Parts: sequence; structure tokens; C-alpha cells
Amino acid sequence: MTDAETVTAIPTRWVGPVRVSGDAVHGEIEIPLATYESPLWPSVGRGARVSRSVPDGIRITVAGESMTRSTLFVAADAAHAHAAVSAIRSRLPELQAAVSAQSRYARLEGMHEEVVGNLLFTRFSFAVGDASGHNMVTQAADTIMELVLSWGLGLEYGSISGNFCSDKKATAVNGILGRGRSVVADILIPHEVVRKTLRTDAASMADLVVRKNLVGSTIAGAIRSANAHYANMLLAFYLATGQDAANIVEGSQGITYAEAREEGLYFSCSIPHLIVGTVGNGKHLAHVDEALDRLGCREERDPGANARRLAGLIAAAVLCGELSLLAAQTNPGELMTAHRALERKERGA
Amino acid sequence: MTDAETVTAIPTRWVGPVRVSGDAVHGEIEIPLATYESPLWPSVGRGARVSRSVPDGIRITVAGESMTRSTLFVAADAAHAHAAVSAIRSRLPELQAAVSAQSRYARLEGMHEEVVGNLLFTRFSFAVGDASGHNMVTQAADTIMELVLSWGLGLEYGSISGNFCSDKKATAVNGILGRGRSVVADILIPHEVVRKTLRTDAASMADLVVRKNLVGSTIAGAIRSANAHYANMLLAFYLATGQDAANIVEGSQGITYAEAREEGLYFSCSIPHLIVGTVGNGKHLAHVDEALDRLGCREERDPGANARRLAGLIAAAVLCGELSLLAAQTNPGELMTAHRALERKERGA
Amino acid sequence: MTDAETVTAIPTRWVGPVRVSGDAVHGEIEIPLATYESPLWPSVGRGARVSRSVPDGIRITVAGESMTRSTLFVAADAAHAHAAVSAIRSRLPELQAAVSAQSRYARLEGMHEEVVGNLLFTRFSFAVGDASGHNMVTQAADTIMELVLSWGLGLEYGSISGNFCSDKKATAVNGILGRGRSVVADILIPHEVVRKTLRTDAASMADLVVRKNLVGSTIAGAIRSANAHYANMLLAFYLATGQDAANIVEGSQGITYAEAREEGLYFSCSIPHLIVGTVGNGKHLAHVDEALDRLGCREERDPGANARRLAGLIAAAVLCGELSLLAAQTNPGELMTAHRALERKERGA
Amino acid sequence: MTDAETVTAIPTRWVGPVRVSGDAVHGEIEIPLATYESPLWPSVGRGARVSRSVPDGIRITVAGESMTRSTLFVAADAAHAHAAVSAIRSRLPELQAAVSAQSRYARLEGMHEEVVGNLLFTRFSFAVGDASGHNMVTQAADTIMELVLSWGLGLEYGSISGNFCSDKKATAVNGILGRGRSVVADILIPHEVVRKTLRTDAASMADLVVRKNLVGSTIAGAIRSANAHYANMLLAFYLATGQDAANIVEGSQGITYAEAREEGLYFSCSIPHLIVGTVGNGKHLAHVDEALDRLGCREERDPGANARRLAGLIAAAVLCGELSLLAAQTNPGELMTAHRALERKERGA
Repeated sequence: MTDAETVTAIPTRWVGPVRVSGDAVHGEIEIPLATYESPLWPSVGRGARVSRSVPDGIRITVAGESMTRSTLFVAADAAHAHAAVSAIRSRLPELQAAVSAQSRYARLEGMHEEVVGNLLFTRFSFAVGDASGHNMVTQAADTIMELVLSWGLGLEYGSISGNFCSDKKATAVNGILGRGRSVVADILIPHEVVRKTLRTDAASMADLVVRKNLVGSTIAGAIRSANAHYANMLLAFYLATGQDAANIVEGSQGITYAEAREEGLYFSCSIPHLIVGTVGNGKHLAHVDEALDRLGCREERDPGANARRLAGLIAAAVLCGELSLLAAQTNPGELMTAHRALERKERGA
Repeated sequence: MTDAETVTAIPTRWVGPVRVSGDAVHGEIEIPLATYESPLWPSVGRGARVSRSVPDGIRITVAGESMTRSTLFVAADAAHAHAAVSAIRSRLPELQAAVSAQSRYARLEGMHEEVVGNLLFTRFSFAVGDASGHNMVTQAADTIMELVLSWGLGLEYGSISGNFCSDKKATAVNGILGRGRSVVADILIPHEVVRKTLRTDAASMADLVVRKNLVGSTIAGAIRSANAHYANMLLAFYLATGQDAANIVEGSQGITYAEAREEGLYFSCSIPHLIVGTVGNGKHLAHVDEALDRLGCREERDPGANARRLAGLIAAAVLCGELSLLAAQTNPGELMTAHRALERKERGA
Repeated sequence: MTDAETVTAIPTRWVGPVRVSGDAVHGEIEIPLATYESPLWPSVGRGARVSRSVPDGIRITVAGESMTRSTLFVAADAAHAHAAVSAIRSRLPELQAAVSAQSRYARLEGMHEEVVGNLLFTRFSFAVGDASGHNMVTQAADTIMELVLSWGLGLEYGSISGNFCSDKKATAVNGILGRGRSVVADILIPHEVVRKTLRTDAASMADLVVRKNLVGSTIAGAIRSANAHYANMLLAFYLATGQDAANIVEGSQGITYAEAREEGLYFSCSIPHLIVGTVGNGKHLAHVDEALDRLGCREERDPGANARRLAGLIAAAVLCGELSLLAAQTNPGELMTAHRALERKERGA
Repeated sequence: MTDAETVTAIPTRWVGPVRVSGDAVHGEIEIPLATYESPLWPSVGRGARVSRSVPDGIRITVAGESMTRSTLFVAADAAHAHAAVSAIRSRLPELQAAVSAQSRYARLEGMHEEVVGNLLFTRFSFAVGDASGHNMVTQAADTIMELVLSWGLGLEYGSISGNFCSDKKATAVNGILGRGRSVVADILIPHEVVRKTLRTDAASMADLVVRKNLVGSTIAGAIRSANAHYANMLLAFYLATGQDAANIVEGSQGITYAEAREEGLYFSCSIPHLIVGTVGNGKHLAHVDEALDRLGCREERDPGANARRLAGLIAAAVLCGELSLLAAQTNPGELMTAHRALERKERGA
């Protein structure tokens, strides 16, 4: 590099508070959004207002957590690759011991494999505590490969990562086998709130979710994804909290599902592979540390609990922004009118 | 929002210079990377060194540019939706005139449509000059919808965006029909440079690209994407230059293809839908303006030429980082050794 | 081969008639289904009964037709590949003339291309009359490649088919760019018919279509496809009419979309790339010829009209079977009860 | 239905024999192909000749087997759906007992689930012996749903099949979680055989596999699939042996991978979810019974062994046809020349 380190300053605001409930996180909490796209702030802010008009607010359900790395071995042929799978499987405890020996937090939890011709892809999943775990699993995979290659199974080194992980790529495997935190955020919004705060109605919202997010994404050729703009909220929250924001690529694969019910609008955002951490790269920076502290993610808790809390808050932010944008899109012209009003306001008009 | 605006400070370095050639950009140019992941800097830096050891450096080919928005209309049934397509198609000039009338830069260039039952998805593509064009095409789509709905075709408003655009979502449509800039970066690296600078050989690189990027991505269930980590370089470059970085979601869909040739390693990164702009949201901020200026993207040029230059430089950065990481992954243990060495260095050891 | 030719006898029944309306086909027509899975007959038969209880029956909308073949050229690098695209594009008339000269029916209509590194994929689309067109487009692609390679553009032969066609593979490109016939079949079914013939209600059907076909397919990692079992009807109809039934792979990618309306259940099947023909391989066999004749696809019509009629009837059959199975699945236990009743009946009980 | 049952007669030839080795199947065996596309016979026949020129012939590796059905439950919200997962998981033995009680062969082996908003998709996998198992798992799912719904978990019936199975649909889930038989067929072909029998060379074949099957399929937007024409061989073999040939839709998703080695051409076909059976629907028909007998799939063996043998033979047939077509495509013009020669021969010229 040719230059001293400088900083890129991303405009940031705390919006909300958002009201959330669930095991992972509970209460009314303001959330930080770092973005060049200022319309995001009032949009998420409107969703947060909705959350505060419902007793339980946005409910957060965390279904699973792990981090993965896939190693690639090369065998002579499929028979040898297949035989190696059995051998590795039978010696998993050795691999688990080795991984635990070299890391305080990483725990090898499982292996999934696929043989393509003479290529053996092994996808290892790990518990990684409060870290996002990128480096932890690469280090662990290194240890695993070295050990497996020493076992005389006829395997050669292929790659420390075989793209079957999958990191920062939109694929199907992460949602099916798990990677990061799997979080569902949902809310049941009374019709009056839908009408007054979101200026729309439950049936229009449910229709739009089907037509745009599900049918529209299908014809666009999306893979395991059906939402309007999860990526926007993820990016802004990730940047403000020191996350590796390139993980929005797979993080933004998720499904918005809604139902028009008698009691109101049921609205949900299912986000199956959120990569987040409260420790590790970037988390020591002063403004990140402060943000995590303000979010209540710096408490003494069981390993993983702070990261789970953060994941829950991010999911809530995603729901707020998704809800608000979709509501706007049910009304012809509203999106641009709102944009223009905001721009006038920003310009000090 | 509950708070005054602050900033999130992302550590940033200029690396390179990278040597590039092509119509869109030519010369030796340093590139800025804003990231919490500091190993990215030396990684891209190594790729830049490789580029400088080849007379033409990284060649940049820009194949197309446009920006899109898909509107959703609702008809009574498929026959009416289909009839409406013909009607809209025959009156495209009216729509083009209306779009041009309300914007200095936006030009309606084409329409692609798909009928699903009674739903009509119309995907409009526009020339948008040097802007990324998100707002421009939303404004244009607004104008188009209002006009089409006034024509008495039996259509109702569905949504200003039907997810067939597709913005910030990983889909197949953008690569097939085009969105943003389509850029290929490629280089032919002499064997000696591969050996000395990348510490690997052409055959190992070509094998890894096939096994990891192509086969590995296939079993992961990727869609129109086969690369190691485009998202990392895109994010860092996007943040440093004021882009809407949520567009790395689709931007990172691309294909690395390599060949071991007699003359050396042919290595290419094809990035079919890069959304970038040199004007618009975020570009007025002082540090962004400065970065764009330093990159030579603030010159008086034909509309679109500054953005094309920026797209070319981003593609070059992607190639540098992709080349370097893949080279490291051909050698067992190298990735973690490099990480650890870097961490020691960062800690001042 | 080591053996004389024999035949495999697939049990076949004509079911219906199905009532259809539209430009491509109109009237009450029985349809043939060749299948080892006998429950398919009464299932499609029930759908046909529904069609006959609605004045217009199933409406057929044919949106487009073409056949494609993608050739693969290899250049030195992306710049040369990109330059070749312009050259080929500018000489398309020569290619069109050459194609027309060697075939009575094939007409070259367009080219779509993508450059990946130094690889140039050119996807040519053709009008092919009443044939499915596999051989016609391969022959045409041969002619095109020979000509293009003679132009001194620095291209080398890669493959007569580059998998960007895509034939008998489930991909996104066919639906987006077109291949075969694009057909939508839809129907508006009065509530009473839904209740009596389908033993369900419009709301349950609309919910099931969203939850199972759209959400379920999304999490399964489907690509541009959201239906219950198009493949079953396609296979049976294809076999009975001498089609190349391996084309059910891509043919079965399609979207079922339904709405619960005041007037009844709106139900649609959108099938964007049906490969069908009434002439060519297999069509001369006596039982195939007879089947096509009985279907009214042996009339003197404009080129393509017989194949369009066939495509419309196939789409109607798809709708009948899809409607019936989904209706059964709205009721717990109905599917197995029906299966068992049928098995008893088949056994002569 | 309006008509007596007739038959559709598909032209059929036995080709080969193909030489295979492995636990599932071993020896030299002729294989039946029922197809309207007569060029398939000599094409597979050429591959069979190649297999006989290698001592071990085509090696068959069977990696796994199961059959699946996904049920859909509807809860009030994600929290309730998630709680139900735990409850069901803890009572899996009850479900296993119930499934075993109502079927001689079906054994419930595992459950995979995904929560989307308030929707709970549970994908159950079963051992099904020698059957393909469609009806067996539907019956089992019926039993499971009835039981689960009786447990008072706050779940309502959604659908007996939630499209997360996935049957006869091209998706990602089957390859990742397993469905049917997972088979790899591979062979190492000496250079001389490649040259003489396939009229090509190892390097050209390896290049074509990468450029066409891997890169071409990627840009086409394929999902977990990279091959030239598996569907053709699958269809023909399926029809001749009484299979439910609509399962070629997912069966044809597979990956061809090749390497040019010093010893020759390594060529492999990985087919991760082949649905095949030697008992059940269609298998009692005289010509099917005879075909299965001739294939050696009517022996007294452990449950599943006859179906595994059949799966192995099908995979071998796939490899033969894939190898032959790709070889032809390495040479400009060969495909059409071969087609035309064949047509002349068929016409008795």
C-alpha cells in the first residue's frame, strides 16, 4: 500500500427505538444505521413506530447458529473420495479435539460432504461464540486439513475453502444447512396502525408481498430469496457495528411473508443466515465499541448471547425497513413523493 | 430519528497503483479500499504488483451499460395482460418522450416484459449518464406508470418495483438482460511472475478456479456466480467512493475463469452488473469527492464516461484481490500464515 | 447396439374433453396421457370437468415462440471476444441468409451474447415452424459457426452448443430470453364449482399456492419455478404425441398463481418455455400421427399454428392436473384416500 | 376419462453391453433405451464401447439413499412454529413407530425443518427399500401429520406436500440433503481409446467440460447442475424400466467433471438424486418386468439392493451418453455429420 491509513466517514443516525421481544433481545432499543442513503433513516424509523404501537413489538425467534468452512480434497476417483468420507467421519472426535486444542471458542460440531467425481468437498460447521468466526473457522479448517492429509487416505490438498461454505456468495446451501444465525422477526399489526402509520391496508400488503416479493423474485431468477430490500438495512447496521459487511451478500437472502388476518396484518422477515459478531475484526474501534455498548451487546453473558442479541436487533431493523418500503409501494407515487419531500428537508428547505 | 447525525469511520487505504488498459481507463492508478478487514489491503496490493509486471496490465472491457426498474401492473387475466404488452410496446415513443421530459439524463432505451397469470411485469431499461441511477429510474417508472394507467388498458397499479429489476438482490435476470455496467477484467501473467509474485503456478491456479469457483459454487447452489470473494473488493471500493454499497449483493455475482497457457496464466474476472456512479447520493461528501477526483473520475467527459472509468477501476481491483486470494489458496496453510503475519505486523510486532 | 428394435408400451388414456378458448386453440377437446402413473388420468379428468363448467373454459394465451442454440467461440481475451460480437452483429444478415439457404423452415431471428473472460457465448434464436426444432437449430448453428470462423475474427471453435441454449436443463435463461412456446393458461372458476367439483374453496387454494408453490419452492432453492407437478402432465402428453420428452426438464419450470376473488377462484399456469412440435422425430409413428390428428394438429395451417395449438392443449392439461392436485392437498388425507380408492378400482375391486 | 386404455409404443433398443464395477453392480450388462430420438442409441453405444476397453470399465459409487416428503404446518407465528419443531423432534420415536406400523418397508430416518414466518416446513426422509417410494412417503406423511396435529402444538394442516421435498422439480435441496440414490460414475480412459473410439483428446474434453458444462451452465442460470444431456439417457432408461419418468426433472441435475491426466482422460458423472425403483407402479407390466429381469434387478437381495443396482446401471448409461456427445462436440461439424449419417442409415440408405 502506498498511503497512510485514513477513514471513510459514513453518515450515521440512531433511529427508533424499536420495540422487540424474545429470548435473544427484549425492550425498546435505538438502532444505528450508517449509510449514504439518507431516506433509509425515516423509513426504518416508521417501522420502529409501528413496533411501538404493538404490545410485544417485533418478536424475535432465533432458530440456530453456527459458522462453516468447506475444505476441498482431491482423490484419485470417486471410490477413494467416498471411502475417505467414511474414514473422516469415524475419526471426527480427533478433529474435534484438535480444533478445541487450538482455539478457546471454536468447537467443531458437524460435517457435511459432497463428492463430485474425484473431488471431495467437506463442509465443517462450528460453534464460534460471539465472533462472526471467519478467521476462527479458517484456522480450524487449516488444522483439520493438516490432520486429515496426514492420515494416508489418498487425499491431496485441494483448497482451504471450496466455495461450499459459502462466504459472501448468494447460494442455497447456507439456508438449507445453516450458517450464522437463523432469525425470524414477525409482528401482528392492528388494522388501525396499518392504516394510520403505514397508510395502507392488510390485504394490499399481503397481495404485494406475494406479487412482488414472491412472484417477482421468482421470475427474476432469485435463489432462496424473496424480499424487497433487506440488503439496505443489513448494510447500514453492519457498518455501524463493525461487521464484515460483505456478508450482506448472503445475509440479504431471506423471505418476507405476510397474511391479512382478521386481527390485522401479520408480517414476517425470515433471515436464515446472518453473519454477525460482537468481538473480532473491527470491533475494537472506538465508535464500534460504543455502538455495541449502546445496543447492550457488551454485557457479560453466555458465549454467543451478545451476538444473538445483535442478530435479533438487526432482524428487527430489517423488518422495520421492509415493512415501511412495501407499505409505500402499495400506493402509486408515494415512494417518489416521500423521496422528494425528504430531499427538500435534507437541503434545509 | 432520535439523534443527531454522526459518522461511522471505516479504515481506508489507497493501494497499488494498479496498471490498467482499455478504452474506459488507462494508466497506473492507486485505488482506495475502506474496510474493517485489513488483510484486504496487502491482498489487493499483491494483485496490483502483478498488474505492474505486465506491459498492458489488467485489460478492461466494458460491454454494456444501463439501469433498470421493473413496474408491476395487475390485469383481469393473462389475455388482457398480454394485450396490454402490445399496446405499451406500440406507444413506447410516448413513454420515451415523457421520461426525457422529466429528466436531464434518463433516457428510456427498452422494455422487457413477462406475464405471470394476470400479473404484468415490465422491466424498463434506461441510460442514466454518470449516476448509478436508482432514483432516476424510480422517478421515470413513476412517470411511465402514471401514463400507462391513463391509457385505459384495463391495468391496475401493482407496484412501482416488481423485483424484476433486480436491485440489491442476487438474481439471474441482471446478467442476462443487463443492469449497470458489464465489465470484464483480464490479464495474461508470465509464468515467472506467477511463480515469484503469486508463489504458485498456472496449472494450480487453473485447477483451483475450476474446482473451487466453478464446481464448488455449483454444489453450493450459486446462481450465475462463480468466484472466491468479489464482494470484499466491491464493498471496500464502494464505501470509499460513496456508492450505494448494498449493490454489492448483485455486483458480486460474477465469474472467474482462468487458463494455463504456454505463455503464462490467463486470468479473468467477468462482472456483468456493476452498479456505480460518480454523481448522486453520497458523491458530494468531501472525502468521496476527493476520492473520485484522485481516481480521475471528476473530469469533463461524455456522460457515462466517468462512471465507466470508475467501473473499470473497480473491476481491476476485483481481479487483484481475486488473483491474490486464489493464489494463496493453492498452497496449504498459506492463508492463515499470511493472516497471522499480518496481525503481528498490525499489532506493531 | 446388440438387439433388434422393440417397443416400450406406455399405458395411455384420452381424458376430458377439456374446454379451451383463445387464438391458438378453441373448443372441447380430449387429450391423451401416456403414463405408468394411473392416478394422473382421473386427476386431469377432474380439472377438465371444471373447465367445462365455465363458459370460456381455460383461456390460452401464447406470448412468444422461438428455438435457440448457443454456440461457443474461444478468443485470445475478452477484448477480442467483445470485438467479435460487434463484427458478428454487423454481419447478421449474412448469417440469416445462410441459415435460410440451408433450411426450408429455419429463420434466424436474433442473437444474444455473453462474454466470460476469453469465452464468447452466442445464443441464436430461430423461427422453426411446426417442428420442435432441435436438429434444425443445430444444423443452423453449424452453418453459422463455419461462416463466423471463416471471417478471421480471431475466434476458435469452442462448441456447437455452449449450454446457454439451454436444452433439457433447468436454467433461468430460457424464461427470460425465450425458447419454445410461452403459454399462459388461466381460468376463473365460480365458487360453487370450486366447492362441488374441487371440494375446496377459493381462499384455501390461494393460500396453498402461496405457501406451497411460492414459499415452499423458494426454500427448496427452485429456479424460476413454482408449481406442484407440471412435470407429470407434460411427460404424459409429450409421450402420447411423440415429443422429445426430455424437454419436460425445462418445460416444467413454470409458475402457478391464484387469487381468491369475489366472483370465484382465479387460477393460472404460466409455462414460459414449452418445446413442442407436430413434425419431426417420432411424429411419423402411426400412433403419434393418429394422436396428433385426433388433437386437430394435422390441419393445413400457417407454419407454427399446429404446434401452437398443441402447446395450448398441453398448457390446458397442465392446468387441469395442477388444479386438481392442489385442491386435493387443501384437505388433510384426501390425497391418500383418493389414491387408495383408485388402486382398489384398478384392481377390479 | 372417455376412452379405453391403449398404449403408446416407444421405440426401444438394448445397447452395450456396458462394463461396470463397484459394490452396487458389476459385470458387462446390456441396457435398454426407450426413445423417439434414435441417435441416442449409437451415442450411448459408443460410450459402452469405451467402457469395455478399460479393465474396470465404469466404476459406480453409491453414496446415499432415501426418499423424502415435506409436510407444511401453519402456526400462529414464528415462535410457535419454532416451539413445535422442538416438540416434534423430541417425539420423533413416536413418529417412527407409527410409520413402521403402517408400512412393511418405509422407515422414518430423519427430519429437516425450516420456519418461514408462521409456516413450518418439515422434510422427512425415509428408507423405502426397492421402491422409488412416492406413495410410501405420502402415506407416511399422512400418518405423521395426523399424529402431529393431534398433539396440540398449535399447528394447523397446511399441505401434505410443501414443495420442500422436492419431487419432479429442479431445486437445490435434494442434492444438499439427499433424495433418491446419490451415484457417481467415473472412468479413466487411456489416451489411445480417447483418440480412436472418441476421436478426440483428453485436453479438449477437459476444456469442453469446463467451458460448456460449467461456465455455460453458470451463465444460463442453472441450479446445482452442469452437464450436457443427462436428461436424454435418464428418460430412455426410465421409460424402458417402468420408472416414473417425470423424475428426470431433478434426476438430470448433476455434474460432469473431467481431468486430462498423464494416464488418460478422467471423466465422471455425479448424479446426486436419482429416483428409481424395481417394485411399485408400472413395474408389474410384462415388458417392464422382463427388462428388469434382464438387467439382473429381479434377484433375491437385501432391500434396496436391486434398486441400487438399477441406479448404478442408469448412472453408467448417463456417463456413456455424456461422454459420447461431448466428444462429438469437441470437433466442428461432427454432431451434424453423425446425425445425417444416422438418418441415412435409418432410412435404409
